[in-house]
Amino acid sequence: MELSEDGLVAAIRTVLSGETSGVIVGLGDDAAVVEPGTGSSVLTTDLLVDGVHFERGSTSARDLGAKAIAVNVSDIAAMGASPRYALASLALPSDIEAAWVVELYGGMRAACDEYALALVGGDLSRAERLVISVVILGEVSRGRAVTREGARAGEAIVVTGSLGAAAAGLALSRAPAPVLLAALSAGWARELLDALARPAARVGEGVTLAQCGATAMMDLSDGLAKDLSRLCMASGVGARVRLADVPIPEAVRAAAAALAVDPLEFAVSGGEDYELLATIAPTEVDGARERLRDRFGLALTQVGDIVDGQGLVAVDAHGAESTMEPKGWDHFAG
Amino acid sequence: MELSEDGLVAAIRTVLSGETSGVIVGLGDDAAVVEPGTGSSVLTTDLLVDGVHFERGSTSARDLGAKAIAVNVSDIAAMGASPRYALASLALPSDIEAAWVVELYGGMRAACDEYALALVGGDLSRAERLVISVVILGEVSRGRAVTREGARAGEAIVVTGSLGAAAAGLALSRAPAPVLLAALSAGWARELLDALARPAARVGEGVTLAQCGATAMMDLSDGLAKDLSRLCMASGVGARVRLADVPIPEAVRAAAAALAVDPLEFAVSGGEDYELLATIAPTEVDGARERLRDRFGLALTQVGDIVDGQGLVAVDAHGAESTMEPKGWDHFAG
Repeated sequence: MELSEDGLVAAIRTVLSGETSGVIVGLGDDAAVVEPGTGSSVLTTDLLVDGVHFERGSTSARDLGAKAIAVNVSDIAAMGASPRYALASLALPSDIEAAWVVELYGGMRAACDEYALALVGGDLSRAERLVISVVILGEVSRGRAVTREGARAGEAIVVTGSLGAAAAGLALSRAPAPVLLAALSAGWARELLDALARPAARVGEGVTLAQCGATAMMDLSDGLAKDLSRLCMASGVGARVRLADVPIPEAVRAAAAALAVDPLEFAVSGGEDYELLATIAPTEVDGARERLRDRFGLALTQVGDIVDGQGLVAVDAHGAESTMEPKGWDHFAG
Repeated sequence: MELSEDGLVAAIRTVLSGETSGVIVGLGDDAAVVEPGTGSSVLTTDLLVDGVHFERGSTSARDLGAKAIAVNVSDIAAMGASPRYALASLALPSDIEAAWVVELYGGMRAACDEYALALVGGDLSRAERLVISVVILGEVSRGRAVTREGARAGEAIVVTGSLGAAAAGLALSRAPAPVLLAALSAGWARELLDALARPAARVGEGVTLAQCGATAMMDLSDGLAKDLSRLCMASGVGARVRLADVPIPEAVRAAAAALAVDPLEFAVSGGEDYELLATIAPTEVDGARERLRDRFGLALTQVGDIVDGQGLVAVDAHGAESTMEPKGWDHFAG
């Protein structure tokens, strides 16, 4: 198959065919036309750049397509909103085969199906290195969007799921071959590599946390230390984090041991977890935990408290306090 | 100024500060939250890649920012819709200075002001070469979006403004220095270089053409031959174009003479005009022409007719017919 723009658009349209409700004009026109819901519109976009966010040579096209959608859906989820429509643009180097691009769109489509949104447009261009730009239009009831600005002193800091698996997976993927092979034979490496390759966005969880009264929320893309620091800056508050309460999976502890790293490095300063970080009144924590467990089988863990002032304080298992630096994943410095 | 992500976001927020109606959550959160209008939502996105769509070394940051917005607004205009909100993402090489990026956003902001839309979000990333990704959310009355699919045999093919200036400007900018200098001293070169650097999107004109009964519409980004071919394919029709009626500015004829090129090369096969191409009942052409002239001081010219069948036929001044190949600007092959 020749890789002409019109030809590729036709192939992509075939992959993406299937009518979706609310789409009036989909792929192939100047712009997509969709029916908005009755709520507010929520818009987000993320760029994924080869060599910065992923390495094309060591990533499956299907996983990459799914991840490009998921990380954008995660931003919508972090507002307590629901994704509705997506646009996906690609800047493609000339050595990419059409079959690879169609696989990428296949991964995007699978993720769109999973999160119940329609892929309605995009753009194709040339570039020296692959760039993927995804846009998502979502919806939230008026006045119900949860920003980063609402955290107040005395509230609990909670996170969904567990932290550090993607960062541990990244570290493993870069480890010497004998370390990686030993990890794979021990069985826990696959879980970490999957967490890196196929993150899940917490859409229903975000809506539920908003319903449970989350006062501020964001997704953990750059690590707990860095992202909590941003949330606190936006809200004009400080935070105390109890390190012993940070939920760390066994596989992350195993990877940390194999790589001779403190597991908190992965769980606090590692990125790409795409779990939700939220603040909520202490009286609401138990109820929110139960609803997340019952509806989604997912843990909700209190990892600290919002306090007056500014900056993050880490409290270790012995009660010793230290400043938690907002270091973490930085795609920009990367 | 240090070029950290958070620092740059703060600088950009300062450039973009100023409340805009309908924006509930703007820059700096996981996603933007905006009030949708009562109509349908219209979504478009375009990538601009250094070395493909522009050459960073020979482009002003301010012009580039304005153009990145304008070319996306043009896609919204081509649906007969109005732009409301924009997202702008940048992938930046490490050698770009913060001041340059702030200038780029200044150009984006000026263009957003010009087209009355709010820049509400985006993303920053590293890359080896500069990539700009703009998203625009617009609005159109329900059922009033004008697609590429509605053209029917017997209808007139019309274009706004004149064609070929941007392509002539591009050719001039690549001409040997003596040719360029002579053109600049003759006075008409500036008009062509401006057309390339600062294209105007035809928003009011698109809405007016929709009101006048345009049956199909798109913007001319890749040249009349290529874009009309796409419109005809989408509508399942053919077209006859009268070459003598294609509106070509004097400056384009002068550039063609200086470069020893047929001016139709620029006007028919050149890209980046961002004028509107539409089809309309022959009885409506005069009325539409008067409204565009009275409201916007802009010409509307009939350049041919939609016919049954498929493919494009060019008719020259002597009535001789030839096949019009859909060649033109191809950012993808570029």
